[in-house]
Amino acid sequence: MKHPDSIEKLIHKFSLLPGVGKKTAARYAYFVIENDRAFAADFCDKIIEVKDKVRLCSTCFALSESQVCSICSTREHDTICVVAYPKDVVVLEKAGHRGVYHVLGGSLSPLEGRGVEDLKIKELLHRIKDNTKEIIVALNPDIEGEATALYLAKLIKPFNIAVTRLATGISMGSDIEYTDEVTLSRAISQRISL
Amino acid sequence: MKHPDSIEKLIHKFSLLPGVGKKTAARYAYFVIENDRAFAADFCDKIIEVKDKVRLCSTCFALSESQVCSICSTREHDTICVVAYPKDVVVLEKAGHRGVYHVLGGSLSPLEGRGVEDLKIKELLHRIKDNTKEIIVALNPDIEGEATALYLAKLIKPFNIAVTRLATGISMGSDIEYTDEVTLSRAISQRISL
Repeated sequence: MKHPDSIEKLIHKFSLLPGVGKKTAARYAYFVIENDRAFAADFCDKIIEVKDKVRLCSTCFALSESQVCSICSTREHDTICVVAYPKDVVVLEKAGHRGVYHVLGGSLSPLEGRGVEDLKIKELLHRIKDNTKEIIVALNPDIEGEATALYLAKLIKPFNIAVTRLATGISMGSDIEYTDEVTLSRAISQRISL
Repeated sequence: MKHPDSIEKLIHKFSLLPGVGKKTAARYAYFVIENDRAFAADFCDKIIEVKDKVRLCSTCFALSESQVCSICSTREHDTICVVAYPKDVVVLEKAGHRGVYHVLGGSLSPLEGRGVEDLKIKELLHRIKDNTKEIIVALNPDIEGEATALYLAKLIKPFNIAVTRLATGISMGSDIEYTDEVTLSRAISQRISL
């Protein structure tokens, strides 16, 4: 005997969430079953509300509930931070970036079939105005991210704007003993004078 | 800047699931956002379907989609396995129990204010018939579970039916070196002749 049909289906649905296995999915499903109907209805409301309200900002392509997001509509557009995905915006906000953003929608990846046309690169170039001072490329420090960063730098060069990328090196609070070789060799070659 | 309002609300909702922190909840919310509307709608359907269809079996109080669950309606009722919660039924099924079940709805717990009236004990006694041979108490081996088991044994004694409980001892595949003292001392006192 397995779970009743409707429970199996809900468990399957929960197991589609990232990092959720069969056991965790069952735990979530039981939690829904044990809670009252209002909880379930409210859960659905929130899921549907997100799908109804959230769209991409027409300027920076971050998630927003209005046509232009709250960041684009309130800040100076002189420093644009380029990220791969909408969720990166929240992390960089917490880290203290106070300029605007531009969400590419990923990095260039021939393997995954993501080319120049699939990313919001054209849109980024259109955003470069006379008052644009700097473009900070905040993509993952992997092969795809680096390749995309170099490609962007080449494209933006004619505009005569500073193009920078996030510093790579050892993480704060980490242990040099356990830092991987590539990171450590970068940290050495990009050492900073005290 | 935090997430747009509707995203914050969905993250909060996901963070109510057992064992889900703020970061995991955000991951789930982004997964919903990144997937299409059909995925979200289907997710809600499954949640609502569970609330609509699942109820407690009128005989054993396990989760069921019909008035009497598939186990109660197809098996002999001579061996009744008493468990605390509906989810325990699935685990015992996997372990190979082929009798029927009776879900108490918890263990006796004065601390949490769960008394005899709050559990389906009366209903269990009503199920004891002439053909009932054995009642297996499968409650957690903690103070509450043991107290409940003893209480049930006392109640059922007049019926002249075997009342048993699950064996306690060292787990299969475990390491004696790391087994806790209480478990080990039980395993010694309840040793089995070879």
